[in-house]
Amino acid sequence: MVLDCANSSVSDFVLEDVPHLSDYIPDLPTYPDPLQDNPSYAVVKQYYVNKDDTVAQQIVVHKNSPRGIHFRRAGPAEKVYFDSEEVCACIVTCGGLCPGLNTVIREIVCGLYHMYGVHKVIGIQGGYPGFYSRNTVPLTPKVVNDIHKRGGTILGTSYGGHDTSKIVDSIQDRGINQVYILGGYGTQIEAALIFEEVRRRGLKVSVVGIPKTIDNDIPVIDKSIGFDTAVEEAQRAINSAHVEAESTENCIGVVKLMGRYSGFIAMYATLASRDVDCCLIPESHFYLEGPGGLLEFIEKRLKEQGHMVIVVAEGAGQELLSENPAPIKRVQGDASPDQLFQDVGLWLSQRIKDHFAKRQNMNLSLKYIDPTYMIRAIPSNASDNVFCTLLAQSAVHGAMAGYTGFTVGPVNGRNSYIPFHLINEGEKNVVITDRMWARLLASTHQPSFSNTKEMVGARDE
Amino acid sequence: MVLDCANSSVSDFVLEDVPHLSDYIPDLPTYPDPLQDNPSYAVVKQYYVNKDDTVAQQIVVHKNSPRGIHFRRAGPAEKVYFDSEEVCACIVTCGGLCPGLNTVIREIVCGLYHMYGVHKVIGIQGGYPGFYSRNTVPLTPKVVNDIHKRGGTILGTSYGGHDTSKIVDSIQDRGINQVYILGGYGTQIEAALIFEEVRRRGLKVSVVGIPKTIDNDIPVIDKSIGFDTAVEEAQRAINSAHVEAESTENCIGVVKLMGRYSGFIAMYATLASRDVDCCLIPESHFYLEGPGGLLEFIEKRLKEQGHMVIVVAEGAGQELLSENPAPIKRVQGDASPDQLFQDVGLWLSQRIKDHFAKRQNMNLSLKYIDPTYMIRAIPSNASDNVFCTLLAQSAVHGAMAGYTGFTVGPVNGRNSYIPFHLINEGEKNVVITDRMWARLLASTHQPSFSNTKEMVGARDE
Amino acid sequence: MVLDCANSSVSDFVLEDVPHLSDYIPDLPTYPDPLQDNPSYAVVKQYYVNKDDTVAQQIVVHKNSPRGIHFRRAGPAEKVYFDSEEVCACIVTCGGLCPGLNTVIREIVCGLYHMYGVHKVIGIQGGYPGFYSRNTVPLTPKVVNDIHKRGGTILGTSYGGHDTSKIVDSIQDRGINQVYILGGYGTQIEAALIFEEVRRRGLKVSVVGIPKTIDNDIPVIDKSIGFDTAVEEAQRAINSAHVEAESTENCIGVVKLMGRYSGFIAMYATLASRDVDCCLIPESHFYLEGPGGLLEFIEKRLKEQGHMVIVVAEGAGQELLSENPAPIKRVQGDASPDQLFQDVGLWLSQRIKDHFAKRQNMNLSLKYIDPTYMIRAIPSNASDNVFCTLLAQSAVHGAMAGYTGFTVGPVNGRNSYIPFHLINEGEKNVVITDRMWARLLASTHQPSFSNTKEMVGARDE
Amino acid sequence: MVLDCANSSVSDFVLEDVPHLSDYIPDLPTYPDPLQDNPSYAVVKQYYVNKDDTVAQQIVVHKNSPRGIHFRRAGPAEKVYFDSEEVCACIVTCGGLCPGLNTVIREIVCGLYHMYGVHKVIGIQGGYPGFYSRNTVPLTPKVVNDIHKRGGTILGTSYGGHDTSKIVDSIQDRGINQVYILGGYGTQIEAALIFEEVRRRGLKVSVVGIPKTIDNDIPVIDKSIGFDTAVEEAQRAINSAHVEAESTENCIGVVKLMGRYSGFIAMYATLASRDVDCCLIPESHFYLEGPGGLLEFIEKRLKEQGHMVIVVAEGAGQELLSENPAPIKRVQGDASPDQLFQDVGLWLSQRIKDHFAKRQNMNLSLKYIDPTYMIRAIPSNASDNVFCTLLAQSAVHGAMAGYTGFTVGPVNGRNSYIPFHLINEGEKNVVITDRMWARLLASTHQPSFSNTKEMVGARDE
Repeated sequence: MVLDCANSSVSDFVLEDVPHLSDYIPDLPTYPDPLQDNPSYAVVKQYYVNKDDTVAQQIVVHKNSPRGIHFRRAGPAEKVYFDSEEVCACIVTCGGLCPGLNTVIREIVCGLYHMYGVHKVIGIQGGYPGFYSRNTVPLTPKVVNDIHKRGGTILGTSYGGHDTSKIVDSIQDRGINQVYILGGYGTQIEAALIFEEVRRRGLKVSVVGIPKTIDNDIPVIDKSIGFDTAVEEAQRAINSAHVEAESTENCIGVVKLMGRYSGFIAMYATLASRDVDCCLIPESHFYLEGPGGLLEFIEKRLKEQGHMVIVVAEGAGQELLSENPAPIKRVQGDASPDQLFQDVGLWLSQRIKDHFAKRQNMNLSLKYIDPTYMIRAIPSNASDNVFCTLLAQSAVHGAMAGYTGFTVGPVNGRNSYIPFHLINEGEKNVVITDRMWARLLASTHQPSFSNTKEMVGARDE
Repeated sequence: MVLDCANSSVSDFVLEDVPHLSDYIPDLPTYPDPLQDNPSYAVVKQYYVNKDDTVAQQIVVHKNSPRGIHFRRAGPAEKVYFDSEEVCACIVTCGGLCPGLNTVIREIVCGLYHMYGVHKVIGIQGGYPGFYSRNTVPLTPKVVNDIHKRGGTILGTSYGGHDTSKIVDSIQDRGINQVYILGGYGTQIEAALIFEEVRRRGLKVSVVGIPKTIDNDIPVIDKSIGFDTAVEEAQRAINSAHVEAESTENCIGVVKLMGRYSGFIAMYATLASRDVDCCLIPESHFYLEGPGGLLEFIEKRLKEQGHMVIVVAEGAGQELLSENPAPIKRVQGDASPDQLFQDVGLWLSQRIKDHFAKRQNMNLSLKYIDPTYMIRAIPSNASDNVFCTLLAQSAVHGAMAGYTGFTVGPVNGRNSYIPFHLINEGEKNVVITDRMWARLLASTHQPSFSNTKEMVGARDE
Repeated sequence: MVLDCANSSVSDFVLEDVPHLSDYIPDLPTYPDPLQDNPSYAVVKQYYVNKDDTVAQQIVVHKNSPRGIHFRRAGPAEKVYFDSEEVCACIVTCGGLCPGLNTVIREIVCGLYHMYGVHKVIGIQGGYPGFYSRNTVPLTPKVVNDIHKRGGTILGTSYGGHDTSKIVDSIQDRGINQVYILGGYGTQIEAALIFEEVRRRGLKVSVVGIPKTIDNDIPVIDKSIGFDTAVEEAQRAINSAHVEAESTENCIGVVKLMGRYSGFIAMYATLASRDVDCCLIPESHFYLEGPGGLLEFIEKRLKEQGHMVIVVAEGAGQELLSENPAPIKRVQGDASPDQLFQDVGLWLSQRIKDHFAKRQNMNLSLKYIDPTYMIRAIPSNASDNVFCTLLAQSAVHGAMAGYTGFTVGPVNGRNSYIPFHLINEGEKNVVITDRMWARLLASTHQPSFSNTKEMVGARDE
Repeated sequence: MVLDCANSSVSDFVLEDVPHLSDYIPDLPTYPDPLQDNPSYAVVKQYYVNKDDTVAQQIVVHKNSPRGIHFRRAGPAEKVYFDSEEVCACIVTCGGLCPGLNTVIREIVCGLYHMYGVHKVIGIQGGYPGFYSRNTVPLTPKVVNDIHKRGGTILGTSYGGHDTSKIVDSIQDRGINQVYILGGYGTQIEAALIFEEVRRRGLKVSVVGIPKTIDNDIPVIDKSIGFDTAVEEAQRAINSAHVEAESTENCIGVVKLMGRYSGFIAMYATLASRDVDCCLIPESHFYLEGPGGLLEFIEKRLKEQGHMVIVVAEGAGQELLSENPAPIKRVQGDASPDQLFQDVGLWLSQRIKDHFAKRQNMNLSLKYIDPTYMIRAIPSNASDNVFCTLLAQSAVHGAMAGYTGFTVGPVNGRNSYIPFHLINEGEKNVVITDRMWARLLASTHQPSFSNTKEMVGARDE
């Protein structure tokens, strides 16, 4: 699907384009975009996005440097591939909660109704299994009117239960021709399977992924919905840990934040707060014992200032937990494939207490806070609400324009259509050899914990 | 110290009075209360409280019923027993955090300065041990000006470390003659020891207790500082649990709240929220297995509505944990005597998950939230701020008036001076045969779990 | 209606009792209270309140002092005067918004359903006129389930439109026999008219008032619903004014708060905040010009600290505005009789600016904040939610027990039934010769502004 | 200062570069960047930004389209032009408050200290006049440690008082060689004057502008600090207006938001809220009377749904106010040049009420909310805190690298150095012929109000 747009000139770029219904269905009729008759759009200079518009992935460039990869710009098309009467859209939410799900649901429904005059939108309940095991619910602007003020998802969600063949059967049976799938990394991989099956069967069905992961670990895109809200809410927990720590002698406040494979929430929450003494993320290995280890640093910081705050991402130090199987088994909140994660927060707290218990002259106090579910369940803030609105509308425009097999997301601030395969190449990580992580280290004054050999390796990669 | 104020008439009451410096020091000089020259008090009809004013403990009465126990009304006295120049006051905070500590500290300092012209106030750091092991900090209106907007305690706090003799030595050495002690149940018992020792030595030192316990389990008084704030903040956790539960199939949200021996926070948070399906408190025993047990109720509620929220107080079901030693040891946040408490929240969550894991056809999702430290560490809300102000000023008036060996607190809405021995008789509990608990049961529609024999026993007590 | 319960003994009290249906309808049948069969109440020692239980108005007493006025204690009765099947209850909300209305509505509905098995509850829409000009809405526990999380009133409200005869006609026509009226001072007076007319017609209809006034100016009762929430929310505005003032040279932040005839919100918000330099309320007269006037004080405070914050209650200084008709007409938010109030905040701001504009060498900056509607419209906080619950249940118990023509409210912390005539005697005011106002003066260090003669008069009243 | 980087090839771009100290001071020595020895940056692949790095202004591009204007990428340089010992930096804040000022101050101080070892940073108090009329305050990491949690600016601010010559005299006298100026549109123009004078005198002084305007109307850059926080806080006011409107019959809630020349806050707050029926901004003209006018729309919407919410930006409809001089003079909060703005919120409210007062059969209720100062004064949220941190560090890197006469700001998500002349070309506006405004119209279902001729003109521009 990669189009080399120009012949060897440095001036030109590579467009990572997305599939289109017309790729495998010949002679599809097109229709004028109903937006052109929409009074709200009457004043707009050009109601549609140019077919040639692309968004550059690379934003920092040099003279004569190649222009790199570009993506298709999201937006209304001059011609659409669905008649409004014909559309039957469905929405499904999969995986864990994050702020903003209800706003996206609301805006897909309202976007289809108000921009395109589409009146058949249904909700699939309880995640992927809802396609084949439960009834659907009709979604209208009235039903979704206030849902953006509530956390969670009105459709319900679940982990797992993906069965491509049954799902596509259900899509066919119900006459669905636009499928909006909100979910994270795993969900998007499964959305790609649905797309492949839909294409194999030659169905006129647009399959659209909307990235939902509070961890912000979806590649290519700038950020995922709910991330700002999550970082904001994490401040409460960090503040509390700081107050507890400051008010008690030799006190450590430990806050566990989300982030199984990538530490974005922990990193940004730490940078925003300025009350954190140590931030541990999955991407930056650490060890406990010995010189340069975490325990040595804790002793030092406690000696200096009498208290400290540690933020630890869910996935940090998992390799240490496996080596030293923790006596405390994780309270597993869901039947997710990630349930093998052990609770690094409880484990770390115990290890720190054990360490100081051995030292007679140091009476340690440790306060452990796990705000995970309190963060996930809040409604999205204003900034995320606007973000969700644009994302949902971009998704709707893309489906109406006949694109399929893509995820919608912001690239350098502009919503774009990104082919599934790029999204599914692997999760996005904090690059610990970038200046953002250095900035964090400079703000917490924590050591990098990694031994020199490892660091040089990372830098030289 | 009980004065029977009248001769057998039904009309009269029993005054539970508090000790006075003049009880054991003869010929103490008195001074006119400086308040009378205070411009702010110039317009007040009577700047002092009548020596005879008492506050009735019993508020619901019948015709010709006895008037019961009364307490001395808090407030400024016509004559004070300290010259402002002579006063050297100290403040100490002991035990766990609760919202409002800094406000009380602020208002004792400002009250002494602005109402009485007292300029020597010092802070004891880090709880009781601070008397003999650390330096003090001078407290002035400028130092404390903004502290009411911060959670925690600027003086620091700790558990234990009480050494009566060393403390009273320190009081003598430093020339302290007013001691303000903020702390909970245990702290107030130790404050009584200090008072006894002070009296034994014949020192002119007022010892004043200010009840601080987020659990609200201090007897006699209406409520303790920070309670309203704590119940308010607990709503966040309950809301989150409710959103998680509603958004996921067969999902239980479990919220652990404070309350080691009494379930007031859990009860009021449940009543305020209306989203709770089951509230477990130390006072109301429950059992898990079998008919009428908790697990049966959970199954039933899940079948009915697909999700549920459980609130469990820290001290609930501790007898069950001891019988069935939990594999999960509590993450002990402090060196408090209460560290023997096992984490009922983690234990209960595990037991519920184990139960449903045995049932093949029910895929349970459980989300556990422990907001304890997030609740304790927030600043007090407006209502608690006003409450703390009145409490602190009442304490100051009492000490200046020469009273000692008392705790200050609201009785039926009026601040009163209560002798230590009444405060220390045992913690206040939720009475499960009162209508308030019935009201909670009616609101959650939960069974009482207790077996009939036990219930009848409770009712007939 | 005043019963002198005992013969001249000091031991006894005067019971200000409330009317009862049996006062004017003979031979009414009674029924056992359904609560006795309610499983939630099974464990309660005594499910009903003793008929003799009274609540003392006077809480601070002396030896041999008279016991004063008592009120009937609210709560379930042993016998009720309505069969559950027979009840048709209605709820109406009148006047301006205050936090907690929806919670009271919810709990009346749920209380009637769950405690008494009453299934016919209807909502009157849009205040008093809704009785005769609009359709009613059915209220069920499902309809009201989540409304306590929303501000405002789901029933709608309005000012005025009271027509006793039409209202009682509508009550008769619709077969309503329990009328719950939520409203402030004026509304309660009109509720009394409804009660009189109902009695005149000999109808078996309980008329119950529930005090709703954000100003907290209802006499007899401790406080009205939403007051705590309002004081809390007012902190935001005061904080903002303080930040603006501190950040700008010679800056005054002026915050207008609710309080037409009484300054409770302004007083408590000032006490809670500690950032206020001057609090102006209707009860304490002030003048602008000349020695001892407000402008002199402002100049002095600005010179001392470079900025200041003024809180002014809506009704403060109205006599000054009438003397000096303000050029700025109030933006009248409603058709209420109170619309004659001029906006003291805008007026005061203009006067202060005019004063300093005359002084060449002082470049004043003034920031005016009117958070009125932002305060009124928020949902009630946890403490108010519990308060509303108890109030609603007390109202329901009273009506079921056959009492009528009363307002329910807390007296010294216990809900009581208070006859309308006491509620309607005049609004409750801040007593500026009490110590609470002195406490405020001491906290702001503001002068009393009143001239000496007036003050002495007030004190000697 | 425009460098055409390549010869006529479509592949190349125009770099809008910024001045450098070496442009007018010959033979300046350079030093290795101290960052290279900073342990936090040890792991970073390349601690400095390539001298050739540029950021593209144009992000949506076509095949073979020109690459347009680029800016110099912000970041550390390989060589710096100041020895750390030699630096004396100052910070000044000018104009109105916005969330985030204290965070920027904090991070400039901490950035200079921790990244560059600079220990001489001073604060200029009270805006531009502070340079010549007041003493400075020393700023250290300890002084600024907690200030990011407070709203406002610890340095104080003011409008006007700019005197280029006196200011540069003061800079010379005090030995200042890095000047960080936080301010909006007018402030940046004056910063350019300072830069010109500094260059004229040949001083080695870097003059750095940091854009501060809550209105988000600075050209070129993506957004200014505090904007997200402001939009978030505006939701409170809109929510309140919505609750008031919904609870009262024929009720209009009017919310005035900031935005003198551009309506970004109003537009984003409306999009985020979804409760707004009509949004009025300076860029989109409207008229009141007659067909297609605002009053007609209000009547229609009230008839349809019984209530409505109007959001009006400060600068909207000013041309109407001038035509119809309002009887209500603006409460002028400051001595700013903008004080000629009349309060469109009060004016509009009055006009609407007058209109409906004329119509006998419509009893209108109107609630006016002006949350301006409550929005300006809050602390920045987490997202703005991180934004402020990066901005401040970028500013510091630029000054240390010897650049001067520039404003720092994000361009397509990357901080860049932008020459003053581009910032000062005119404020950024909402383009009402772009799809974002159409999106708003589609969300509120409001008409565009403009007459057709005007609209076509706008579209064809």
